[in-house]
Formats: sequence, structure tokens, C-alpha cells
Amino acid sequence: MHKPHVVIIGAGYGGIMTTVKLQKLFGIGQIKITLVNKEDYHYQTTWLHENAAGTLHHDRTRIPIKEVVDMNKVDFIIDTVVSINPSEKKVKLKNGELAYDMLVIGLGFEKTTFGIPGIRDHAFSIESINSARLIREHLEYNFANYHLDKVNDNARLNIVIGGGGFTGMEFAGELVNRIPELSAEYDIEKALVRVIILEASSTVLQGFDPQLVEYAMTSLQSRGVEFVTNAAIKECTQDSVIYEKDGKKCEIPSKTIIWSAGVRANCIVEQSGFETNCGKVEVRDDLRSPEYDDVFVVGDCAMIIDKETDSPFPPTAQIAIQQSSVIAHNIKALIEGKATEPFKAKSLGTVASLGHHDAIGVVLNNRKVFGWKASVMKKIIDNRYLLKLGGIGLVMKKGKFNFFY
Amino acid sequence: MHKPHVVIIGAGYGGIMTTVKLQKLFGIGQIKITLVNKEDYHYQTTWLHENAAGTLHHDRTRIPIKEVVDMNKVDFIIDTVVSINPSEKKVKLKNGELAYDMLVIGLGFEKTTFGIPGIRDHAFSIESINSARLIREHLEYNFANYHLDKVNDNARLNIVIGGGGFTGMEFAGELVNRIPELSAEYDIEKALVRVIILEASSTVLQGFDPQLVEYAMTSLQSRGVEFVTNAAIKECTQDSVIYEKDGKKCEIPSKTIIWSAGVRANCIVEQSGFETNCGKVEVRDDLRSPEYDDVFVVGDCAMIIDKETDSPFPPTAQIAIQQSSVIAHNIKALIEGKATEPFKAKSLGTVASLGHHDAIGVVLNNRKVFGWKASVMKKIIDNRYLLKLGGIGLVMKKGKFNFFY
Repeated sequence: MHKPHVVIIGAGYGGIMTTVKLQKLFGIGQIKITLVNKEDYHYQTTWLHENAAGTLHHDRTRIPIKEVVDMNKVDFIIDTVVSINPSEKKVKLKNGELAYDMLVIGLGFEKTTFGIPGIRDHAFSIESINSARLIREHLEYNFANYHLDKVNDNARLNIVIGGGGFTGMEFAGELVNRIPELSAEYDIEKALVRVIILEASSTVLQGFDPQLVEYAMTSLQSRGVEFVTNAAIKECTQDSVIYEKDGKKCEIPSKTIIWSAGVRANCIVEQSGFETNCGKVEVRDDLRSPEYDDVFVVGDCAMIIDKETDSPFPPTAQIAIQQSSVIAHNIKALIEGKATEPFKAKSLGTVASLGHHDAIGVVLNNRKVFGWKASVMKKIIDNRYLLKLGGIGLVMKKGKFNFFY
Repeated sequence: MHKPHVVIIGAGYGGIMTTVKLQKLFGIGQIKITLVNKEDYHYQTTWLHENAAGTLHHDRTRIPIKEVVDMNKVDFIIDTVVSINPSEKKVKLKNGELAYDMLVIGLGFEKTTFGIPGIRDHAFSIESINSARLIREHLEYNFANYHLDKVNDNARLNIVIGGGGFTGMEFAGELVNRIPELSAEYDIEKALVRVIILEASSTVLQGFDPQLVEYAMTSLQSRGVEFVTNAAIKECTQDSVIYEKDGKKCEIPSKTIIWSAGVRANCIVEQSGFETNCGKVEVRDDLRSPEYDDVFVVGDCAMIIDKETDSPFPPTAQIAIQQSSVIAHNIKALIEGKATEPFKAKSLGTVASLGHHDAIGVVLNNRKVFGWKASVMKKIIDNRYLLKLGGIGLVMKKGKFNFFY
């Protein structure tokens, strides 16, 4: 008897949660589940900015897959997906090939540079444990070098964030908390260190409530962050960033440019021949690809239009996690020959952290929150995810309980 | 009434201990004492290899000068010495000039490269808090980059130590203790990391007892250190080191070359017109310059021939500390019109650390010690110095008590 083979590629929020849900829905041996991921760990992308700033160790952000996935029910393969062949129902890996009956694509996002010269080679991005850890070390390395250069080089102490979106603002908030420590460690006057956010549009945190944006800017400015809006980055070199504002070109000497202005869905989806909109698959209501009945798409690779606003849902962890429940349910429905159910987003609100004890957000019924209260809500949301993923044990191990200090 | 003005340049072992001794010998206002140093701290040069390896924080190694020097008795100037004019009795600083009645030169050592191309630009050296801290960060930075290079680059994980003398061996001993931590932190297989000591002569730790040398080599080899003797470094680049052995040139890809094969007395002494032997002043028995009655030289800038062996005393902390007592005593004698006393070295032995719990050494009456016992002796010697410098309070703050773990 052929057991249906479900293959999940990518262990981000969507992929890992689908796997965990599936292993709960099926008994041992009922179906064959394979999870493929580049690393032997899942990580919380929404915490990476803290790892990059050095305020939270990356081991808190990552979770070994074997801790949350039942290896009796799931085959776990550490490998990199090269391409998908949906007509042949195969996934090509760097070191092999997998045939599937049903596929869940959860390959996440990648950096996009809009063709700006130098971004790919000289700018850093907050996209993985490896890249976040490198930013932390890059900052330290430049601080450590400062007193050893023949001429003191401000490019070592100017940190430029390209893009004042969610990630850029959250990173800035952590960074200004970290700078006093870095300054003490490397004997550098705190006042010499600059953190500059360059934002191409007229405001940071576009789409957020203006009152909350103002709160966020004031909070960061009071801790030393400088904002330049309407500033389009034109080029990055190893030692500087060039931007244009009001028709004039300006240059900031900087060896640390954090690019947080552009992400897109993983290119593999488009390159594998799926029909895409901005690189994403416009999935059916039940989260299947419109072209293939046996392919689900979750998270950043999927696009769903919010009928209320007529624009796509944002690519958030929250949406990916909600989708994973529906996908797991629908996989079971298809195997049992039942009808699939449609995805309905349930907004729990959005909170952006601004450092240890500050945040802004919009929660249930569009209520605005800010300050310490918002930062506590953020932590509760994060702990709630850990609870769903790995139960109370995981919350105790990796959760955030520093509400008061 | 003119108070004699004693100027001490350099707050290394010799300079700081002379200052501390002088402030004990004289009451407030009896003489004018000025200490000049580049930084506002003194540091234990013999601990820097631990800071460089990352096994000990540099704040343990450095001591704020105001903690051990009585600011009621001593004027402390943070500045860099540019030159000395002994005929005019003046010291030129970067930001000023000082006139003295008596001078103590304690300007320490600097790196010498024997003209080998690339050493100055691409090799690191363990010579100051700044340079040791940079080595620690350079190691971490390369480990952090390893998984982000398009092609894995072994030059990031090969650590080459140029020179198997005291410093090179002690650094290797700490480094191999640190590598398991670094490997875990950056998800790198421990076995991929190499530590290679290149030694130009036929043996490491030249001058040490052969039995102890063998013990040291075996200890380090068992923890993964590779030795290449009779290997003369010919060139360093940013990514490799080239050496010659048995007439053949070999290249090791490495971004981390620690140069520990050559130090010399600070060039300022020679450049200021003092008669020198290999850059050092061959001082009189009472530690004064042969040319100037009012100039003492202490530590690495002084040369004294050991009459028993007919060769110069090695440039150790121990000798510098012993000299400082005699210099302080002789300054008082000269001021009081009494005869100076000659310096007599008292060897307390030499211990080289090989990591946390291992060491080799020769102590009183040429007794050989090694292993845990020697490492404890090393720590006791270090704590003894702290006691002399700043009393029991300083021992409690900066001492080493990890005898058993």
C-alpha cells in the first residue's frame, strides 16, 4: 500500500509549523513526512535583529529541529533546495532528489537590492543566523580596529541602516541599547558613534499609524538615532554609502551598511516555473498553487489578497503560522477525500520593538499601544509562538521573560 | 626652594613600579614626580596572550593608573613621548614638553620585523591591550564569515604563529583552549581549525631545558598545535604566509598570522641619540645611562650583562620590577647626596604557561616544574606582582585564583 508522501521544503515559520501540525494530525506510519532544511535548526527571523545588534545570543533565536520535530514521524534532511519540478512531482536538492505526493513550499524570503550598485557586495542584511552573527562581529571588529588605525577612521563608527521599515527600526532600537557596552569594551567615546537611518520615502514605518511613527522616531532620536527621509541610496562601497536627497548627492563614510529596504520571495519558486506575482504564488483560498493540486505554498512565497483592504497580507510570521494550520488540515482532508477549507486571516495586531523596554503597536480592534506595555505584549506574542511550536518546555528554554529589567 | 623633578616615561612594569616605590619613599611635597603614559592604564604584558586568545578579558589585564598611583604625590600626564633631549633635560611629548631633573626611561618594547615583507601590514602582534583585543576580534570575525563566503576559505581557520618563543607558545596554549568555544559559537567543525607554529630555529623555546621543551611541545600537540621548525618566514600577505624550509618554499593560506618572533627596545631611545647596543642602553651598575648622570633606564630599554653567564639578562617583567626598586632607592640617594647602590638580579625562576592548567618552568635552584603545579606557580608569581603594585585590594580585584578549575 502506497503511503502518501508529504514533503515540506524550508523550516521557517510556515514550514516548521506545518510539520509540527502534521505530526499531530497523523499517527506513526499513516503518512510519510519529509522535511528539508539548509540547517539543522529553525530560527525566529523576527528576533534576528537582536542577534545582529548583539543584545541577544543567537542560540536563543534558533531551535534545533530535533527538539520540536518527532523523528519517529518525520524524515529530516539537511540539504539545500535547488529547484522544484511540479509536473514530475520532484524536488531537486544539492545532494539528491525527492519525489512527493504533496509538497509544501516554505522557502522564505531573500534580499533584493533593486540593482543598486554595491549593496550585494558591501551591505549586510539581517536574514539568517549566519548573517546576523556576522553583523555583530563586524561591528565589534571595527570598534576593535579604531585605535589601531594610523588615522582614526569615522567610517568604523558610523552605522548606516538602509530602510526605515520594521526591521530597520527594530535593529536601530537594539543597536542604541548596545552601543554603550561596545563603547566601554573598546574604549571609544560614545558620542563618536553614529547610527543613521536612510529612508527613501517621506516617512519611516510606512503604513503604520502616524502617531505611533512619531512616538517611535522620538524614542530612537532620544537615544541618538539620526533619520534622513526622502533619501534614496545610490551606491555602497566598502567605506561609504552615497544617497540622493532633494536632487543632491551626499556621502556618509561607513563600513557598516545594514540593508533592510528590500526582501522578496525566494527566487527558486519563480525559477522553477511557477506563475508568480512579484515572485510570489497567488494561492487559492485553500493555499494551494492555482496550477497544481498537490502543491501548497506558505509564508513569504505565498500571496493572498486581503478582501477587506484589497491589498496583499503582509509577509509576517503571524500569517505564516496561521496558514500552516490550514495547510496541515487541508493535507489531511485531501488524503481522506474530504473538502479543503479556506484560509481566513485573524489579525492579532502588530508590534514593533524599539529596544529592550520600548515598542509600538496596533492590537485587537485597532487599539494603539506603546512603551513598556507594548514591549511586554511583543514578548507575550513571541512566547505564544514558542508554546505552539514546542510546548511549555520550549517556552521555558527560549522564551523572553525580562519584562521588568 | 627648587624641588627635584623626577619624570618617569612609560607606565609598564618598570615605570609604574618605580613610581609606586618613589611615592612610598617620599612624603607629599618633598619632590615633584611626573608620570607620563599613552593610556590611562597600566597593563600586564605577560597576560596579553590570554586577552588575544579570548580566554581572559582585557579588563583583568589592565589596571587604571589612578588605582595604584597616589595622585596627591604624582602628576599623571596622558600623552605620547616623541623624543628625549638629555643634554637639555627635556622630554618632548605629542602635546607639550617636560623639563626634568631626573628621568626614568621605561618605554618598553616594540615589534621588529627583520624587514620581512608584509609583516608590518598583515601580521598581528601581542603588544598592547589594543592589539590583543584586535586579535580576539579578528579570530571571531573570520569564524563568523566562514559560512557566508561563496567558497569556504580555509585561510579563515588557519592560525599561524610566527615564532615559537615564550609568547608564541603561551598564546598557542591559550588558543587551543579557546577553539572549542569558538567552533561552537560559529558552527564550525573543530577539526577544520588549524594552529601552526613556524619556528626559524631548530627548536621552540630556545634556551629552555630540552626536557621541558619536549613536555611543552607534547602538551600543545596533543591539543592540536602543529610545529614546523627550521621554517623561516619569507613573506606575509593578507591571505597567506610563505616560509622556507630545507630550501623549499611553502605557502599556508591564512588570514591570521601572529608575529611573535621579534621585539626590540622602543626606537625613541636610539633616535634620541643615546648610545645603544641593539637599541638598548647598556646601563651602569646603578642603572643610570653611562652618558648622563640624571637618566635611569628600566626594563626592556636597558641592557645589563649577567656576569655569571656573560650574556644580557632577558627582557622580563621580573627583571624590570627588580630594577625599579634599585632605581627608586638610587633616586633618593642622589637627592640626599648619598652613594647609589648597584643592581643585583635575583632569579625567581621562569614559568611559561601552556593554557589554563598546564605550564613549564625552572624555579629556584634550577628545579624543573611542569603541569598543574607549574601553572599554579605562575599564578602565584602573577598575584605576587599585583600585591607589590597595589596591595591586597588589587590582588583581590585582578588576581588569578582559578587554581583548580
